[in-house]
Formats: sequence, C-alpha cells, structure tokens
Amino acid sequence: MSVIRQDPTTKEWVIIATERAKRPDQFKREQSPTDLPPHQASCPFCPGNETLTPPEILRLPPDEHENWNVRGIPNKYAALTGSGEAARRETGALFREMDGVGAHEVIVETPLHNQRMALMADSQVERILTACHMRYCALEKDSRIKSIIIFKNHGERAGTSLEHPHIQLVAAPVAPMLMRRKHDVAITHYDDTGRCLYCDLVAAELDARIRILFETDGFVVFHPYASRLPFETWITPRRMQPSFSQISPEDLRELASVLRKTLHGLDVALNNPHFNFVIHSAPLGDHQHEYYLWHIQILPRLTTIAGFELGSGIFINTMLPEESAAFLRKYCS
Amino acid sequence: MSVIRQDPTTKEWVIIATERAKRPDQFKREQSPTDLPPHQASCPFCPGNETLTPPEILRLPPDEHENWNVRGIPNKYAALTGSGEAARRETGALFREMDGVGAHEVIVETPLHNQRMALMADSQVERILTACHMRYCALEKDSRIKSIIIFKNHGERAGTSLEHPHIQLVAAPVAPMLMRRKHDVAITHYDDTGRCLYCDLVAAELDARIRILFETDGFVVFHPYASRLPFETWITPRRMQPSFSQISPEDLRELASVLRKTLHGLDVALNNPHFNFVIHSAPLGDHQHEYYLWHIQILPRLTTIAGFELGSGIFINTMLPEESAAFLRKYCS
Repeated sequence: MSVIRQDPTTKEWVIIATERAKRPDQFKREQSPTDLPPHQASCPFCPGNETLTPPEILRLPPDEHENWNVRGIPNKYAALTGSGEAARRETGALFREMDGVGAHEVIVETPLHNQRMALMADSQVERILTACHMRYCALEKDSRIKSIIIFKNHGERAGTSLEHPHIQLVAAPVAPMLMRRKHDVAITHYDDTGRCLYCDLVAAELDARIRILFETDGFVVFHPYASRLPFETWITPRRMQPSFSQISPEDLRELASVLRKTLHGLDVALNNPHFNFVIHSAPLGDHQHEYYLWHIQILPRLTTIAGFELGSGIFINTMLPEESAAFLRKYCS
Repeated sequence: MSVIRQDPTTKEWVIIATERAKRPDQFKREQSPTDLPPHQASCPFCPGNETLTPPEILRLPPDEHENWNVRGIPNKYAALTGSGEAARRETGALFREMDGVGAHEVIVETPLHNQRMALMADSQVERILTACHMRYCALEKDSRIKSIIIFKNHGERAGTSLEHPHIQLVAAPVAPMLMRRKHDVAITHYDDTGRCLYCDLVAAELDARIRILFETDGFVVFHPYASRLPFETWITPRRMQPSFSQISPEDLRELASVLRKTLHGLDVALNNPHFNFVIHSAPLGDHQHEYYLWHIQILPRLTTIAGFELGSGIFINTMLPEESAAFLRKYCS
C-alpha cells in the first residue's frame, strides 16, 4: 500500500506509491548529452561571442582581460525587464495585471561549453555562486522587486534551451503564492513553537538519520520526508539566514563544495540526469526575522509531470526518500 | 514588454512574455503518434484482453455482451487503494503520514486502440463522461474520501504510459492545497460580493468577448485571462453546480458535445497535441453552497515546465490568451 505524506514546509500532500517503482539504478536510463564540444562557434555564451549577448552586467574575475570565468548578462528573451512602474491595472473587478517590470538575468557558469557543474572545481562553483549572490544583493535594492528566484535548468526535460551551462535569476514585482505559502507556514510554526521551522526540520532529519546524504559544519543535505520527485534533494544551511543575500563569504565557499559534491553524486549515480535546482529565499523585505531559512531544492526530472500533478498540486512519487537516500549516499562520500 | 496577470481563481500570477513567442501555428510541430493500429494484441485495454486488468467496476452498455463501449477498472498500479482507515500517524511534530487509502481508477474510453476523443462521436464522449460521473458519485459516498480528481493524460509529454485512450480518477483521503486555495478564493469572493466567483468570471469573459472560443446554452469555453500555458482552455458550466457529481443527464450530454468540439479544435489546429485535462470540483462535503462551480481545464503540453515554474509556482507563458483564442476560434465552429 502506498503512503501519503505531508510536506511540513507547505502542508501539501504527496503520494508515495512504490508499487510501480523502479529500483534506484533503473532511473539511470535518461541522460543529458555528454558528447558536447568545449567550444561551439554559434553559442552566444562561448568566449569570442560576447557581443551576441546583451551588454554584460558582471564578469569574474572582474578585471579587463579576456579570460573570464563567469559572466552575468540580461536574458536576451527576458520574461521581465528594466524600467517602468510596478503599478496594477484593473479591468473590472477580476482582471488585474501589471507591466512586466523586474529583471531576468543569466549567469554563464563557465567559458567551456561542455563543462557541467557536477564536474567543475569547487573554486569555479564558488565563483558562480558569488556571481548569483552579487546579483541577488544588487536586485534586492530595487524597491519594486518583491521576490528573487535563482534557478537552473539542466537538460531538455528540465526546460533548458541553451546547452552551455548557465543559471538564471528572475526578480519579480510580486511574491509568488508558493513563496507566501512557505513563509506563512514557517511563521505559524514560529508562533506555535518560538523556533524556526527549517531549523527544527533539519534537527528532525538529523535525528531520524535515514534521509541524510551528508552534512558539513554549515550545511545538511537530505532527501525530504515528503519528496515530490524521485531523488529530490534539499540543501539547508545550519545558520539562521532567511535570505540567500545574507550568506557569508565563508559559508558561500562551503556551499560551493557542498553543492558540487551533491550534484556530482547525482551525476554519477544517475548518469548525468536532467534536473532543475532552485534557491528559495523569503519574500524581499521579510529578511530580518527568525522564522525562515533559505534553502536549495534540487529536482531531478526523471519522471513526467502529468495531469494529476497539474490538476491537484499533489505529486505521485514512485520512490521513498529513505530508499533514494540510501542509494545516493554511497555516491556523495 | 511582458505583462504580469493574476489568476482570479487562485490569486497566483503568471508572466506572459511574448518576446520569445512563436506564432500560434508554430506550436504545431509536436504531435502524438497518429499511426496506431485499431487493436493491439499486447494492450490490456483492448477487447479480448479484459482478463489482463483488475476486475471490472463498470461497463457501458451495462449488459453482458462482449461489445462494450466503455469500461471502468481499478488502476493496476494504483496510487491509492481500497480498504483501511484514513488515520494520520505522526513521527515527532513534523513528519505526518497516512496509509494510501482511496481509489485510483481508469475509464477505458473506447474499444479502439487508436481512436482519440477529439475524433469520437458525441455519443461516445457522452458514455465516457457518464462513466466518470457514475464513478465520481459512487466514490464520493465513501466518508474517508475528501477529494476526487478526474484527469486525462494524452501523449508522452503529458505523462501517459498507455496509449490506448483512457481517463483516470483519483479519490484521495485529503484535499489538495490547490483545491483548498481555489475554494477559499471563491469563498472570499462570495463573502465580498454575494456572488459565485466563477459565474462572475464567465460573465466578465462573455462581456470582454476576446478570449471566448464558443458558448452553448449550458457552457462557455474560453482561454483564461491568466493562462499559464499556450492554448490553456477552460470549459465552465453556466448552471450553479459546485461538484461534477451534480451535473444533470441533459447537461452531461451537452458537455460531451462541447468537450469533443473543443478537443477537435485543438486537435486540428495543433495537429494532435499532447495535453492534460482536469475536472475540478469543490472538496467533498462542500457541495451545497453557492460559491463554487466545477470546471474543466485543458492544458496542452506544448512547452516544458522548467525550474522557474517548479520553484516559484509562477508560469511564464509565451502567448497571450487573446491571440490563442483568436487563432483557435476558427477551428471550433
């Protein structure tokens, strides 16, 4: 019989139905292309093609020379853009809209067309996260912005359109319902207990031990109790930081190593799977409290999101997180 | 510049960014297989293979003879099953689960392996919807069940695993957060205005006229103001029925024709696209009120759900519903 579990951070349910399960290693079949060249003449993110992108926002290292490691640029096909006011317009009582103001940026992770994050040096991942952090901190100064989502699409099934490794930031003039929900659930927990929900959750996972992949001084990596997808993986800091903008340089360095090691484990165990990851922070302006903790969710795209998931919001997962964690733990040591 | 619109039924935002848009007819490229045989020896849903499925729940026409038109059976790989109590178990304060009690059923739409709903006779679609309605009404009598979702996955990108046309019902002992949310938003609207949100919405769409595909005595078909996906299509009844279980036989007959005509329009315009549809009803037990209206959402799977959508819940749509409706309207006449 299957089991229905509640995600303590959203209160949403997931159904974990292992009757139709595969063994962990059977998820290996689908993979992203691995035969890419290190440089592709037509790729706008490859060195030499810098003029094909909109004007650069940042470059690491920041000096003038051509050998950049990481670039930050606006998305050429931006979902949200630049100037203008974030004023609502209403047509009748029900139709509410606003101009698409905000930002949609790209962090080009590496000059190498074919170097995926799982296989990079920790120092390169640190540069990438530093670039993300710099842009997050710059964008949150804009008073029109209410939320910033940092995310990565790796592989076609994860929605990537350019294969050159890159991360995206979307800064929106609204807070998504899901972000509000997560924040509200955390506030309710804080009101009930006086403690941060995510700190309690990490403590409970460490206590249970069965879903932990590994831990470091600053971070805990685990498969959450109510995993929506097979091999869903969360990285949670131990230090109280509601927003990713608050991370210290030391923790950022440690995070780079933790993220790289986690992605490397998934990469080896599942043979370069398609995946998304998302850095969740509190809504902007809600950073000075003790009830939220930014965190990373890695979402391997090994299964298809079907009508039930889209229509109900409840995911049907075919693997217990205890099983996937036991399998993946071997690859994260 | 893009536009950010709020879905009046969930209060969630969508970003409609037409900069990277295709023209409506460019979505035509991907299609489901059209070269299927009418009968496949290995298919558990094809006539002659009835013993390959779990014991039948219903058959239309209901008499004994072998020439069935529609069959209802339990899903062989059910996400939720049969007997047992829907009692919650808690491990510590954060880990809450329950046995996967409920039901997960399949309606086999036709004996023909290759006959898709868009191309069926209205009378066959009516039989299918009658079977869905009979099972909904039977399942809602179980006091453990709190929600029933009826959905269809057509095509691999929509998550189908068996190509023989079928619909699924999941009856769950919990109400999904999304269902609660939609219901709560409708109640708030009712408290504010004294009217049903969905009735007001349909009236506003009919007034605006620019997103309507067509209307009949009993139903209105339109592309919603805050469409999450290109060609997202809603079918809404005009008569006050919070639950699909409350539909009359006459309305069911009309709905069959409306649904078939809508799917046929999408099928011709987009060349047999992959899609999901979902019948949304109120949570069970909340059927006797005037603030909710069951409705069908058809979700073509022409684009990939990527990290931003999964991480924020906000969809980036590349097509204005006014444009898709103007294009599709021609195919629904």
